[in-house]
Amino acid sequence: MKICFVAFPLEKNLKAKEELERKYGSVEPEKADYIVALGGDGFILKTLHDFLKIKKPVFGMNFGSVGFLMNNYKLEGLEERLINAQLTNLKPLVMRTLTPTGKEIKAIAINEISIRREKYQAAKLQIIVDGEIRMEELVCDGVIVSTSAGSTGYNYSASGPIIPLGSNVIALTAVSAYQPRHWKGGLLKDNAKIKITNTNPSKRPIVAHADHIESKDVISVEIEMSNGLEIPLLFDSDHKIEDRVYREMFKSN
Amino acid sequence: MKICFVAFPLEKNLKAKEELERKYGSVEPEKADYIVALGGDGFILKTLHDFLKIKKPVFGMNFGSVGFLMNNYKLEGLEERLINAQLTNLKPLVMRTLTPTGKEIKAIAINEISIRREKYQAAKLQIIVDGEIRMEELVCDGVIVSTSAGSTGYNYSASGPIIPLGSNVIALTAVSAYQPRHWKGGLLKDNAKIKITNTNPSKRPIVAHADHIESKDVISVEIEMSNGLEIPLLFDSDHKIEDRVYREMFKSN
Amino acid sequence: MKICFVAFPLEKNLKAKEELERKYGSVEPEKADYIVALGGDGFILKTLHDFLKIKKPVFGMNFGSVGFLMNNYKLEGLEERLINAQLTNLKPLVMRTLTPTGKEIKAIAINEISIRREKYQAAKLQIIVDGEIRMEELVCDGVIVSTSAGSTGYNYSASGPIIPLGSNVIALTAVSAYQPRHWKGGLLKDNAKIKITNTNPSKRPIVAHADHIESKDVISVEIEMSNGLEIPLLFDSDHKIEDRVYREMFKSN
Amino acid sequence: MKICFVAFPLEKNLKAKEELERKYGSVEPEKADYIVALGGDGFILKTLHDFLKIKKPVFGMNFGSVGFLMNNYKLEGLEERLINAQLTNLKPLVMRTLTPTGKEIKAIAINEISIRREKYQAAKLQIIVDGEIRMEELVCDGVIVSTSAGSTGYNYSASGPIIPLGSNVIALTAVSAYQPRHWKGGLLKDNAKIKITNTNPSKRPIVAHADHIESKDVISVEIEMSNGLEIPLLFDSDHKIEDRVYREMFKSN
Repeated sequence: MKICFVAFPLEKNLKAKEELERKYGSVEPEKADYIVALGGDGFILKTLHDFLKIKKPVFGMNFGSVGFLMNNYKLEGLEERLINAQLTNLKPLVMRTLTPTGKEIKAIAINEISIRREKYQAAKLQIIVDGEIRMEELVCDGVIVSTSAGSTGYNYSASGPIIPLGSNVIALTAVSAYQPRHWKGGLLKDNAKIKITNTNPSKRPIVAHADHIESKDVISVEIEMSNGLEIPLLFDSDHKIEDRVYREMFKSN
Repeated sequence: MKICFVAFPLEKNLKAKEELERKYGSVEPEKADYIVALGGDGFILKTLHDFLKIKKPVFGMNFGSVGFLMNNYKLEGLEERLINAQLTNLKPLVMRTLTPTGKEIKAIAINEISIRREKYQAAKLQIIVDGEIRMEELVCDGVIVSTSAGSTGYNYSASGPIIPLGSNVIALTAVSAYQPRHWKGGLLKDNAKIKITNTNPSKRPIVAHADHIESKDVISVEIEMSNGLEIPLLFDSDHKIEDRVYREMFKSN
Repeated sequence: MKICFVAFPLEKNLKAKEELERKYGSVEPEKADYIVALGGDGFILKTLHDFLKIKKPVFGMNFGSVGFLMNNYKLEGLEERLINAQLTNLKPLVMRTLTPTGKEIKAIAINEISIRREKYQAAKLQIIVDGEIRMEELVCDGVIVSTSAGSTGYNYSASGPIIPLGSNVIALTAVSAYQPRHWKGGLLKDNAKIKITNTNPSKRPIVAHADHIESKDVISVEIEMSNGLEIPLLFDSDHKIEDRVYREMFKSN
Repeated sequence: MKICFVAFPLEKNLKAKEELERKYGSVEPEKADYIVALGGDGFILKTLHDFLKIKKPVFGMNFGSVGFLMNNYKLEGLEERLINAQLTNLKPLVMRTLTPTGKEIKAIAINEISIRREKYQAAKLQIIVDGEIRMEELVCDGVIVSTSAGSTGYNYSASGPIIPLGSNVIALTAVSAYQPRHWKGGLLKDNAKIKITNTNPSKRPIVAHADHIESKDVISVEIEMSNGLEIPLLFDSDHKIEDRVYREMFKSN
């Protein structure tokens, strides 16, 4: 079994990486059967982004608090865990933004694509779904389009619904809607093609994020679920992500 | 084409029914190709319930405001409309309640199953999903389990998400959760088996409704999507229910 | 110092009452300087209601979890605690309901007055504030009018705001508003005179509660803050109710 | 009667200003009895800020849609309207921010003071009220502290409560709270001294606004209601701001 270890540069992670490499060896990502990532949720997410193209299954481990995308850290028994791990293929969103200079930026989001006002003035957004103008003007702080995997994060904080893994919907969630007042958004089919246009980009600039990938001063943002691209993520079988989504949903706050 | 007309007993409906029957004839429901129902959303819903077993497609028409499950009233051209209508098969929920005397009541819900406290004291509910206790004790006014078709109704009023037709999720929405405070619920896969148990039925009685069908003083409520049963509903093709769900979602309040 | 002890009839409370009476003596409520109540929040609330007219300061004590209106139980040092206690005068609400038979019921609420549908059909309510119709028709599960003391309870569960003690506002909070959709209510000046009328009492009966005092099938409910009536409640000075309201407000859920 | 006219530089406003000045004359602000401002809500707010120090009553007029702080435009009868107008003294908030270079910025807010994350990372804020740490760490998009006058604006969009004019509370409203999840904030007494500190300013910079006045990269923000400063605003007596707050509260969305 060939493993490639990556670690978020904190001392404990780097030390663990050393120990793991001593025990299991280490190969280049391209030659690996598995990528094992040591760090928090943010780092796992970054690792998934980094290795999107080589399509190797990623197994995250962390010390202390075990985040949403991770497993417990243990030095021993890693090969067995990898063999027995449950594979979850996350379907990411694709974001295409247009900037005032006509530049198009494309980025992938495993969790969510968010749009946010950059200035004091509320954003004014037009929302098109599958070619149809569904909202002429949403005046708001911003908007989130979230996958199931991302639904327990920013989407949930903004009062969007938690979506179970394996469902065919994505969440469109508004943040602080001024007009229509208290508009919350809703769910869309996961094959929906969404286009969000800034109706007043000079006075009311907006920034878009595909996970952590930033695109500033965008004129429009097109969002759809990736057709084909799947992101293989591994979980200890007593610790499945489906279950974590439910646990998050039923948590006491 | 054989049509069976039914009408909510208001004068205008009864008069329209007469005119329609004069023009198109009328047959018993069992012999009809189509059921045409004249009345509001509540009446269409009732008609769907009444004709569950004979599985005839229902086409609702209404004067004035056209509700969620209906089409515009017109005397002329009905046969053409029926032929060209879009068929939507709604998948209902099945509710099985247990009463203190051990009686089991079974009922079908096209829109939602709701549970509500009957007295001053908040309800104390345990929630089991697919055999697993997901919430030991929810202290609340009540809980709603809603289909997509029902999601724009009571579920939405209680801040549950609007679910597009054709998705594979149902909404579990809490009403006025006292503990866990502000718990909102979430989405479940539509094959989830839900069991909600009243943990204190003597002091804190609850009532359950499958749409309008009431079951008082229930000890427990089991809910799952019907396996097999589908309810055929017809819409003018320029007036599809999928579209109405979206329109409701993006409406200005 | 003359104390009257009352206890919620659980063994531990009754035993504690006995010990306290042996140590401090006990007098009739009318002759007491202080009422000391042993029990939970619900019992303290009931005690406050029971002794409304004799206007004696009430000091609540409880074992185990110390609720909102209570202090810790201790046998020793009670007289000193009472002398040093901080006095908070709660201003209750007065509810006047009208039933179909023309009967008027008057009741006092220290926490909140709530109105709730009795049946499957949503309530349809008209809201008048200070003689002006502010809402022609609210279609909803119910409505809560809450004092500051009650604002952390049912009001907060229904997403109403927590109101600090000593402020001059009360909360009007809607539960599951269907129309206007997602209407949340707001704050009113504490001298507001509110009248809520059931616009369809035969089809859509409602029940009103002033704290636990029930009034069924009401036609209308008039609510205003009591003019003059104040309810004296005592707290250990390191455990003030003002502070508890804030603690509740900033709690982690 | 000496009037000073100011106008937002749109043609219609400037033309109206000319006509008004021809009819009523015009003086320097310092010598005026009244400031009459022509423009929308934003401009009236700016005018109030501009003339804070000279304490002259401001009367706003607008064409078309009449915003929250304004009256209808009419050329005739202005002097009578001013004489009969109802005076409302708004009590503003004072914001004091500290920047990393130790610079202190002070600004006045008539509507609200808002704090917002500048980057992708959620803000991490500590909240102190009256010298007491009330929240160790709020992870969120931002926080709003709103006066009654501002409560119908950004505060309301972020699900904060609408506060009637003349009450002694201010709203502290959280935007997209990630931790504590769904924390909404609450009401504080209007003499509360609030201090909000950025616990991670290097990684998670925040920007503060007192109405439109921006203060970037702030380390901490101190907020309290101004002691003494009052802002005189005039309304036609059939169009009082108290009433507008209520109208906004009971509006259909």
